[in-house]
Amino acid sequence: MQHDSPTSHDMQACIHACTKCHHLCLQTALTHCLEVGGSHIEPAHFRLMMNCAELCQTSANLQLSGSAFSAQLCAVCAQVCEACAASCEQIGGMEACVQACRSCAESCRAMSGAVH
Amino acid sequence: MQHDSPTSHDMQACIHACTKCHHLCLQTALTHCLEVGGSHIEPAHFRLMMNCAELCQTSANLQLSGSAFSAQLCAVCAQVCEACAASCEQIGGMEACVQACRSCAESCRAMSGAVH
Amino acid sequence: MQHDSPTSHDMQACIHACTKCHHLCLQTALTHCLEVGGSHIEPAHFRLMMNCAELCQTSANLQLSGSAFSAQLCAVCAQVCEACAASCEQIGGMEACVQACRSCAESCRAMSGAVH
Amino acid sequence: MQHDSPTSHDMQACIHACTKCHHLCLQTALTHCLEVGGSHIEPAHFRLMMNCAELCQTSANLQLSGSAFSAQLCAVCAQVCEACAASCEQIGGMEACVQACRSCAESCRAMSGAVH
Repeated sequence: MQHDSPTSHDMQACIHACTKCHHLCLQTALTHCLEVGGSHIEPAHFRLMMNCAELCQTSANLQLSGSAFSAQLCAVCAQVCEACAASCEQIGGMEACVQACRSCAESCRAMSGAVH
Repeated sequence: MQHDSPTSHDMQACIHACTKCHHLCLQTALTHCLEVGGSHIEPAHFRLMMNCAELCQTSANLQLSGSAFSAQLCAVCAQVCEACAASCEQIGGMEACVQACRSCAESCRAMSGAVH
Repeated sequence: MQHDSPTSHDMQACIHACTKCHHLCLQTALTHCLEVGGSHIEPAHFRLMMNCAELCQTSANLQLSGSAFSAQLCAVCAQVCEACAASCEQIGGMEACVQACRSCAESCRAMSGAVH
Repeated sequence: MQHDSPTSHDMQACIHACTKCHHLCLQTALTHCLEVGGSHIEPAHFRLMMNCAELCQTSANLQLSGSAFSAQLCAVCAQVCEACAASCEQIGGMEACVQACRSCAESCRAMSGAVH
């Protein structure tokens, strides 16, 4: 960027993890899960995929904007990502989502403690 | 709606309060504050207005989608709304924002305890 | 509000219609449609519900922010709302969504011509 | 991903360009521009930065969800990105934003014609 970045290396990594998780959950839910059906569109699982995508998007946006509340939101985001990873694991055949959610959860947990 | 609503009366009230706060903060920041300038575009204040708008939007969306994590997000949203209300109060001449933020904070605090 | 509103009466009505349509499509898709299943989770229909919710949200946000591109976005939003109304009508039992989408489409079409 | 991607190589490139432009405009506006002040917070410029960020986010989300209306939204997004690039160029010292906006505009224009 053309100026000194206000975000640390760790925050940039968390923004990246949130964005990847947001994109993968949204794309997988609205293309793969809807087409496959069965347990993939079980209401609690599908809602979790959509909620995870939205929380990750908001978490990235708050960090990008230099918000003083990024840590608090990251703490919630980490919980949703963990729940989504567990739900995807139980259904099976969703390894990419499981990995993106776990990775994002870990990164958000670190940010949630670091910025407090 | 054409079906029994999954959201209680309290949740509908919270969704309404979040939407009002989101709209008022976004509109005031990007039209009023930018035009008036001075303390209205002090970075910490302006960011808080934008973050408050985004959090309120996400909080409404999670409640509308029947998310199991609405309570946790409402708890964070209540904190951001309180901070935004205090910032608007200090600047002065932003009574509508102060009131919308306070009202949303109160409603989110109630939801955060109720749904836990 | 504490200042002269930059938005006309018609724009406020369009913001309201977009918000109502966004909320109803999101809530109906992620609570009603997912639970009922069958034709309600047919991929093309369900995606349309989610896309309609997102476009309406963005359309409201651009109008609230006084964007010079509100008219162009309203034109796209009107098309998505019309398609969503038609899809809901074909499935049946979704009168509230049909009405909210039609009303939003009409309001967005008016804005799209008016602001150009 | 664990399934054949429904998005072409070109669409993935456009999603990437939209995400980069969204992130850079949001981060630059709410951290750099607000801190620097002067012409950087001129209302029309600042609003354009925020609108560009929001449109790019929505454009990426629609493409990720396999929306039938991605092309129409990409056409609007291309216009907003071009306007934002021109505004950033005029202010000066915002080369990274100019480049991200131009690159996103080009990618969105291609998608808007390709998917029609």
